[in-house]
Amino acid sequence: MADAYIINTLFVIFSTTLIILMVPGFAMLEAGIVRTKNVTSVLTVNVMIYVVASISFILIGYHIAFGSIKIDTMSPLAFMMFQMAFVGKAINIMSGGVGERAKIFPLTLFTLIMGALIYPLIVNISWGSDILKDTFLDINMHDLAGSAVIHSTGGWALLAAILIIGSRKGRYINDQIKVIPASNIPLFTLGALLLWIGWFGFNGGSVGNIASKEAADTVALTIFNTNTAGLAGALLAGIFIYLRYRLFDITMILNGALGGLVAITAGADLYGTVDSLIIGGVGGVLVVIAVPLFDKVRIDDPVGALSVHLINGIWGTLAVGIFADTIPLLGQIKGITVIGISVFTISYATIYTINKFMVFRASDDAQLEGLDVSECGIESYPEFRRVI
Amino acid sequence: MADAYIINTLFVIFSTTLIILMVPGFAMLEAGIVRTKNVTSVLTVNVMIYVVASISFILIGYHIAFGSIKIDTMSPLAFMMFQMAFVGKAINIMSGGVGERAKIFPLTLFTLIMGALIYPLIVNISWGSDILKDTFLDINMHDLAGSAVIHSTGGWALLAAILIIGSRKGRYINDQIKVIPASNIPLFTLGALLLWIGWFGFNGGSVGNIASKEAADTVALTIFNTNTAGLAGALLAGIFIYLRYRLFDITMILNGALGGLVAITAGADLYGTVDSLIIGGVGGVLVVIAVPLFDKVRIDDPVGALSVHLINGIWGTLAVGIFADTIPLLGQIKGITVIGISVFTISYATIYTINKFMVFRASDDAQLEGLDVSECGIESYPEFRRVI
Amino acid sequence: MADAYIINTLFVIFSTTLIILMVPGFAMLEAGIVRTKNVTSVLTVNVMIYVVASISFILIGYHIAFGSIKIDTMSPLAFMMFQMAFVGKAINIMSGGVGERAKIFPLTLFTLIMGALIYPLIVNISWGSDILKDTFLDINMHDLAGSAVIHSTGGWALLAAILIIGSRKGRYINDQIKVIPASNIPLFTLGALLLWIGWFGFNGGSVGNIASKEAADTVALTIFNTNTAGLAGALLAGIFIYLRYRLFDITMILNGALGGLVAITAGADLYGTVDSLIIGGVGGVLVVIAVPLFDKVRIDDPVGALSVHLINGIWGTLAVGIFADTIPLLGQIKGITVIGISVFTISYATIYTINKFMVFRASDDAQLEGLDVSECGIESYPEFRRVI
Repeated sequence: MADAYIINTLFVIFSTTLIILMVPGFAMLEAGIVRTKNVTSVLTVNVMIYVVASISFILIGYHIAFGSIKIDTMSPLAFMMFQMAFVGKAINIMSGGVGERAKIFPLTLFTLIMGALIYPLIVNISWGSDILKDTFLDINMHDLAGSAVIHSTGGWALLAAILIIGSRKGRYINDQIKVIPASNIPLFTLGALLLWIGWFGFNGGSVGNIASKEAADTVALTIFNTNTAGLAGALLAGIFIYLRYRLFDITMILNGALGGLVAITAGADLYGTVDSLIIGGVGGVLVVIAVPLFDKVRIDDPVGALSVHLINGIWGTLAVGIFADTIPLLGQIKGITVIGISVFTISYATIYTINKFMVFRASDDAQLEGLDVSECGIESYPEFRRVI
Repeated sequence: MADAYIINTLFVIFSTTLIILMVPGFAMLEAGIVRTKNVTSVLTVNVMIYVVASISFILIGYHIAFGSIKIDTMSPLAFMMFQMAFVGKAINIMSGGVGERAKIFPLTLFTLIMGALIYPLIVNISWGSDILKDTFLDINMHDLAGSAVIHSTGGWALLAAILIIGSRKGRYINDQIKVIPASNIPLFTLGALLLWIGWFGFNGGSVGNIASKEAADTVALTIFNTNTAGLAGALLAGIFIYLRYRLFDITMILNGALGGLVAITAGADLYGTVDSLIIGGVGGVLVVIAVPLFDKVRIDDPVGALSVHLINGIWGTLAVGIFADTIPLLGQIKGITVIGISVFTISYATIYTINKFMVFRASDDAQLEGLDVSECGIESYPEFRRVI
Repeated sequence: MADAYIINTLFVIFSTTLIILMVPGFAMLEAGIVRTKNVTSVLTVNVMIYVVASISFILIGYHIAFGSIKIDTMSPLAFMMFQMAFVGKAINIMSGGVGERAKIFPLTLFTLIMGALIYPLIVNISWGSDILKDTFLDINMHDLAGSAVIHSTGGWALLAAILIIGSRKGRYINDQIKVIPASNIPLFTLGALLLWIGWFGFNGGSVGNIASKEAADTVALTIFNTNTAGLAGALLAGIFIYLRYRLFDITMILNGALGGLVAITAGADLYGTVDSLIIGGVGGVLVVIAVPLFDKVRIDDPVGALSVHLINGIWGTLAVGIFADTIPLLGQIKGITVIGISVFTISYATIYTINKFMVFRASDDAQLEGLDVSECGIESYPEFRRVI
C-alpha cells in the first residue's frame, strides 16, 4: 500500500512535469504563428495565463472542483499540482485564438475567473465532487483526460470570445481573406512537438494509477494510443493537403497531429491500435477541413484553435461512444451538450461584462503597429530588419 | 514480480519520453544548421520521418524485428513504443545528411521502407528474434543502444543516399569548397542539447531493467558514462579546434559531444569513467578530423552526420571489443561488417529504385530558390529581411 | 530496502535529467537577452561551462565535497551525477552576468577552478563531509537545494568578476545608462520556462528520498512550493511593473519568477502554500527593485543575475529562519556570511590572478564588433539583416 502511494506519487510528478512542458509548448507554437509585431504579446499572455490560472486554481478552483474528496492513493499535493497543470491549458486554447487583437489585462482578468470558477465548475460536474449528482443534468460520460472537459471547454470559451472581440483588423476585407503567414516556423514546430510530448503526461497521468500490473498496462496503452493518434492525425492531414496542393504544409501537418491528440484524449485508455489510428486520422482531417470553414464564416482564429480543440474535443468525446463497447454514445452527447452550453453561456457573459469595463479589443492603430509596442513596450526581435 | 513489472514500465515510459524529445532535438539542430531558405523543408522532413517511420514500425517493422518474442518484464506496449522511438532516429541521421537538396516525397517513401523493413531487419539480427541464428552470418556483438544498429545504420543509408543524390548545387566548384554557415546558432545549440538529454533515455532505457539493486546500478552507470562521453567529446573537439584556429567553434564542440555520445552508445553499461572519457574524447576528435576529410572526397553532408554517426558508430562498436574485457573484438567487427554491407546494399538499391520513379534531387532552380518554396510553399521566417 | 534503493535511483535520475534541461534553459535565456552580435559567444560559454565544470567535478570536485561519505540509499553514480548537474548552474549565474564582454578562455579557466575547488569547498562545509566541523566556523543552516550554496555562491563570484572586469563598453556614459534591449524574446522565454521546469528536479531531487509515504509527501510538497513561489514571483513582479508603467514586461515577469524560485530553494520542503506565495512574491519584487539599483551603482549585469540569484539567494536563506519554526535565523545568517566571505574572497583572488595572465575583458573593438566574431568566428544569425 505504501509502495503504491510512492510509485503513484512519482508517476504523477513525472506526468505533471510533462504537462508543464506544454507551457513553453503553447508559448513557442503561438509565438511562431503570429506576426513578429505580436510575438512578445502572445508570449506574455501565455506566461500570465500559467501564473494567474494556477494561483487561482490552487487557492480557489481546486476546492470548487474537488470539494472534500480525499486522495489516498498518492500524495495529495502531487494530485493538486497535476490538476493545476491542466487549468492553464484550457485558457491557452482560448487565448491563442484571439491572438493579435485581444489585450492582456482583460485576458488576465478572464483567466482569473476561468481558473477560479468556470473551469473548476466543469471539472466538478465531470470528474469532481459533482454538484449535479442525482439531478437530470448529471453527466456520466467517459472523458479520460478532457477532450470535452478541457479542449471543448477552451474551444467554447474561445468561440464566445471571438464573437465579442471580432476578427483581426484587416483580416477580412469585403470578400477577401488576407492570408497571414506564420512568422517563425521553427518555433511553431518546437512548440507543437513539446505539446505532443506533454500529452503523454496529460493522458498517461490521467489514468491516475500505475501501481499494479493492470494499471501499468493501462498507462502504457494510454500513452501508446495517444502517440498513435497524433501520428495518424499528422499523416492524414499531410496526405490531404498534399493531394490538394502538391505541397507539404508543416503547419497543417502539426495541427493535424494536435487534432489527433485532442481526439484521442477522451478514451485513450480504451482503444486498440487501429481505433487510435482511425480516431486520430479523422481528427487530422477534421482540422484541415475546419480551418477554411471557420474563415468562410468570418470567425478569425490565428492558430486554428477551434478546429484543433473544439471540433476535435467534440469528435473525441463522441468517439468514445462509438469505438468503446461499454460506453453509451448518448451519455457522451449529453456530456458534450451540458459542458458546451454551460461554458459558452458563462464565458460569453463573463467576457461581455469584462468588455463593458475595459475594452477587450486592441485599437486598430495598436493592431497595425503590433501589440508588442502598446501592451508590452518590448519588441520581440528588435535587431532584425523586417520585410513588413 | 509485479513490482518489477510496474517500475520497469514506468522507467521505460520515462526513457521513451526522453527519446521522443530527440524529435524536436534533431529538428532544431537541422533547422539551425541549414540555410534559411531550406529551414521549413528540413523541419517538415523531420516531422514526416517521425510520423511515417513510427506508423510503419508499429504496424509492420516491430513484428519483423521481434517476431513472437514475449515481453514479460514490463508492459509490452511500453516496450513497443520504446523500440518505435528508435526507428526515426536512424532515418533522421540519413535525412540530415542529404538536407538542402533531397525532396520530401521520395524521402518519405524511403522512410516507409526503412521503418517497415530495413531497420527492423537489422534489429532482428542484432537484438531481435534473429533470422541469422545458427548461420555463419549470426552476429554476437555487444551493442547496448545501437552504435552499430542505429548510428552506423543511419550512416550507411546516408552514404548510399549521398552517392546517388549528389552534393548541393554550388557546394563544390572546381577546386573550391564553398563554406555554408549555419543560419541559426541558438536553434542548433538547443537541438544538440536536447539530443544529449534524450540520449540518457536512449542508453539508460536500453538496459531494459531497473528493478534490482544491480540493475539500478547498471542504469546509473550507463547514464553516467553516456554523459561523461558527451562531455569528453565536446572538450576534445573544442581543444582541437582552439589549438588550430584560436577560436571556440560551437558547431564543432557540439558535434564533438554528439560524436562522443554515439561512441559510448554500444557499451555504456560496461565502462569505467576513464574509459568513457577516452572513448568519448576520441569520438569528438574523430568528428573534427572526419568533417574536412569527407569534404575532400566531395561527399557533401551539411550536418556532419557521417562524421558523427557513421564514423563514431563504428568506433563505438569497436571500442566495446577494446575496452570491455569480456567482449571479443572480432565479434564486434563481424557485427559492424554484416550490418554495414546489409544496410548499404539494401539502402542503395532502394534509393536507386525510388530515384528511377521520382527524382530524389531537387532541381538546381529549386535549390537556388530554397526547398521551402518548391516543396512546402512556406517560408521559415517570412518577415525577416535576408542578407542572402 | 532494495525497493527503496531502486525507486530512489529512478527518482534521482529523473531529477538529474530535469536539472540538465537547465543547460539549454540558461543557454536560451542568455542567448535571448544579449545582443545578436554576442549570441554565439554566450551559447559557447554555456556549453563550455557544462563541459568543463562537470568533468572537473566528477574527477576532483566531488571528492573534495563529499570525501569518503558512503551513499547507500540509491545508486552512488546516480547521486554523483545529480550533484554534478548542480555545479555548472553556479557558474552559469556568474557567466551570464559578465556576458557581452568576458572572454571565453579565461571564463573556462575560472570554470575549471570553480568546478574543481571553489564550489566543492562550499558544498563540503554545507552539505558534505564538512572540514569546518567542530570549529567556530561550522555552518548549521537549512539550505535544501542551495539558495545560499548555489545561488548566492554564483552571485558572489559574479560580483567579484564584475568588479574586476568592469561594465560593457558604452553601457554607462557620464550620467546616462544605455538601455540594451533583449534581442530575442521567444528564446528568453523558452529559456526561463525550461529553468522553471528544471527547478522541480533541483529542489525535488534534493529531498534525496521518495521511498516512504512521508518522503513522497515531502517531495510533492517541495515541488508544489517551488512552483508556487515561481508563480508568486512572476505575479508580483508583473503587478509591480504594470502599476508603474502600464505595460506587461515579460523580461521582468520571468525574472520575477526566477527570483521567486531562487528564494524558495532553501526551504521548499518546510513551508505551507501561503508562506511559499509570500516568499516567492517578495523574491519577485526584490528582482524588480534590485535591477535598477545595481545600474545606479554602475554594476553592469546584462541578465539581472545579481538581482535574481544573489539577492534572492540571501533572501531565501534568511526566509527559512523566518518562516520555518524549527530553524534558527542566526544559523542561516552565519551560513550566508561564511559562504559569502569565502566565495567572494577566493573568487576575487582567482579572477584577479587569471586576469594578470590573460586579460578577462574583451577589447573595446571586439565588444563593438561583437564577441561572436573575435571569440568564435561564427555569427549567430548570418542571414538576417540587422537594424544595428
